[in-house]
Amino acid sequence: MREGRNRNAFQIVKEDSQTKARAGILRTPHGAIHTPVFMPVGTYATVKTCTPYELEALGSQIILGNAYHLYLRPGHNIIKKAGGLHRFMSWEKPILTDSGGFQVFSLGENRQLSEEGATFRSVIDGSKHLFSPERSIEIQNAIGADIIMAFDECTSYPCDYEYARESMELTTRWARRCKAAHNKHEQLLFGIVQGSVYLDLRRKSAEDLVETDFDGYAIGGLSVGEETEIMYNVIGHITPMLPRDKPRYLMGVGTPENIIEAVSLGVDMFDCVLPTRNARNGSLFTSEGKVKIKNARYKRDFTPLDPNCQCYTCKNFTRAYLRHLYMVNEILAHRLHTLHNLHFYLSLMRGIRRAIDDNTFSKLKDDIAALVSSGQECGVERKE
Amino acid sequence: MREGRNRNAFQIVKEDSQTKARAGILRTPHGAIHTPVFMPVGTYATVKTCTPYELEALGSQIILGNAYHLYLRPGHNIIKKAGGLHRFMSWEKPILTDSGGFQVFSLGENRQLSEEGATFRSVIDGSKHLFSPERSIEIQNAIGADIIMAFDECTSYPCDYEYARESMELTTRWARRCKAAHNKHEQLLFGIVQGSVYLDLRRKSAEDLVETDFDGYAIGGLSVGEETEIMYNVIGHITPMLPRDKPRYLMGVGTPENIIEAVSLGVDMFDCVLPTRNARNGSLFTSEGKVKIKNARYKRDFTPLDPNCQCYTCKNFTRAYLRHLYMVNEILAHRLHTLHNLHFYLSLMRGIRRAIDDNTFSKLKDDIAALVSSGQECGVERKE
Repeated sequence: MREGRNRNAFQIVKEDSQTKARAGILRTPHGAIHTPVFMPVGTYATVKTCTPYELEALGSQIILGNAYHLYLRPGHNIIKKAGGLHRFMSWEKPILTDSGGFQVFSLGENRQLSEEGATFRSVIDGSKHLFSPERSIEIQNAIGADIIMAFDECTSYPCDYEYARESMELTTRWARRCKAAHNKHEQLLFGIVQGSVYLDLRRKSAEDLVETDFDGYAIGGLSVGEETEIMYNVIGHITPMLPRDKPRYLMGVGTPENIIEAVSLGVDMFDCVLPTRNARNGSLFTSEGKVKIKNARYKRDFTPLDPNCQCYTCKNFTRAYLRHLYMVNEILAHRLHTLHNLHFYLSLMRGIRRAIDDNTFSKLKDDIAALVSSGQECGVERKE
Repeated sequence: MREGRNRNAFQIVKEDSQTKARAGILRTPHGAIHTPVFMPVGTYATVKTCTPYELEALGSQIILGNAYHLYLRPGHNIIKKAGGLHRFMSWEKPILTDSGGFQVFSLGENRQLSEEGATFRSVIDGSKHLFSPERSIEIQNAIGADIIMAFDECTSYPCDYEYARESMELTTRWARRCKAAHNKHEQLLFGIVQGSVYLDLRRKSAEDLVETDFDGYAIGGLSVGEETEIMYNVIGHITPMLPRDKPRYLMGVGTPENIIEAVSLGVDMFDCVLPTRNARNGSLFTSEGKVKIKNARYKRDFTPLDPNCQCYTCKNFTRAYLRHLYMVNEILAHRLHTLHNLHFYLSLMRGIRRAIDDNTFSKLKDDIAALVSSGQECGVERKE
């Protein structure tokens, strides 16, 4: 065990008696995170449309950045020179960066894979780049997030068994190289469990990563097209193999239903573009179900988007106004929709944490509206 | 004089001894406006990228809406049903709507002019519409702004004398019809002086409108391509013909220099898309001159956009970060740039009002940076 490594960053505060859900606190250099937590996605050093002030007012505890995107633009060296990502974007709370694995492998034809790493051409200027485990860690060290991720190969779905096995074994070797390369120990390093939908491969991946010993464990390669039940089955298979006292992060998932189910299976951390991307597409989460704001039925609907919501959007504007802004393609539509959808997700997580604390989680877990409602008032909301 | 018409809406508080500049208060149903005032443009029931909360925090006293655009989308009847534009967009301070004249005449080939009004085809769905003076007033009554404008023809530049004369006379006849049609007297109605660059036509226009008696007088048809000196000459010719005790509004103008010069010629009110449109194009006003944020020189510039500025953008972010956001086309770039440029314009106006009060206007009028600096702290700024 190396000097300076904080091995007690995560602490479980409460475990649900009926499910595997747990509430915890993850301590980072930029503050403590109460789990289960949803992390808004801020790929390019901004959660799309939001100021840091708004994110904090919404109750965001941690946001995501992406090593691949930030490496290409503006370049990790510029972020380093700015004093790190927190100072660059003026966000003083925790940040997690993804390693870039998912993005590099999404390039398909435009990248080549070897034991060393992945070579790819920039979609911006065609220039050639190599992402290796060491390079990804170097970039993530420069960016300076509180939590960084091992460089992995994320398989697509469906994926044949042999490819999934070889890929998982490569991801494990890369994870070890990441750990060896990482010497900025104030940054927590998470390993990523792969193995597609094959439970024996997932077991092997988890065992090898746990043996290598990371500060936390992510579950990657899910929500890539497989049936929801298969995803739940894989998650439920993996979490019991991970150490109880380390945080568990389900990457890129998902809907409110997905999150509640994964929490019940013992997952602590989530990220997903759904609330922010859907917002910009006018697809809004409410306590009464989804609202597609462009629908003509809202043209003369002078009620709030969600009558049970306490967000700035719902307290100040009507569906008719939001629809109008959306139809004339005003930036304010994207802003107000993003604020609302993030508030919905963050309220859901507050409701989940409260339910775990209160021992009501198993009772409430099928009632999204009740969880969201319970989480409304917990946030640091702007009084406007 | 009709019952209920508030003929003392405008009050001059101070007149500059060296120039024709004056400071005043214009009272409206939604509050008092301190002049000289800049009105941010909110064409589609939103000042692009801004929430009402932000506009108020920036110190905006009044914003603009546009009858033509709001008539087409979402439709004035929807706004009326929402309880008026203030409620529709959740803005509780004064609003001014332009009549739609400028927009209709900008359609060129797509509109036909007659004594009755202007017939045009919608650019959205090709449907045919008639804007007459009576129709424009009906629409503006429904929208419910505090200040509404007579329906005018805005000539382009250059414009031959005969066309300018006939157009001006038509605008005068339309202005009288607007006054006759307007019976919602809590809304102030402004007439618009036209006549292109011909001083005798401008005189005739002003005299006829003053005789008709409006709550305020606008100067239209300027900043449409003519030399700046010609514009100043026309303004300087018109203002002495307008009643001292009525507000004067120079439509669609302009740069900080234009505004200061027009204030010195006795103009009280301004609107222009420059601060908001330039913001979205990455062209930023600073106390040290214009900054084109995409310039490569800002890539590693970790200083604030304007070191002398107290806006949210300048207090929290660097040029390098703003450039990055702009280069990856993030909405936050447009937001932060708009906040800054509006803060610059509104600080300039606060500085101008203070200078008139202090009898330092003529001394400071060539020093934009000093005026903006003097106006920094007067606003209701967000403490963040």
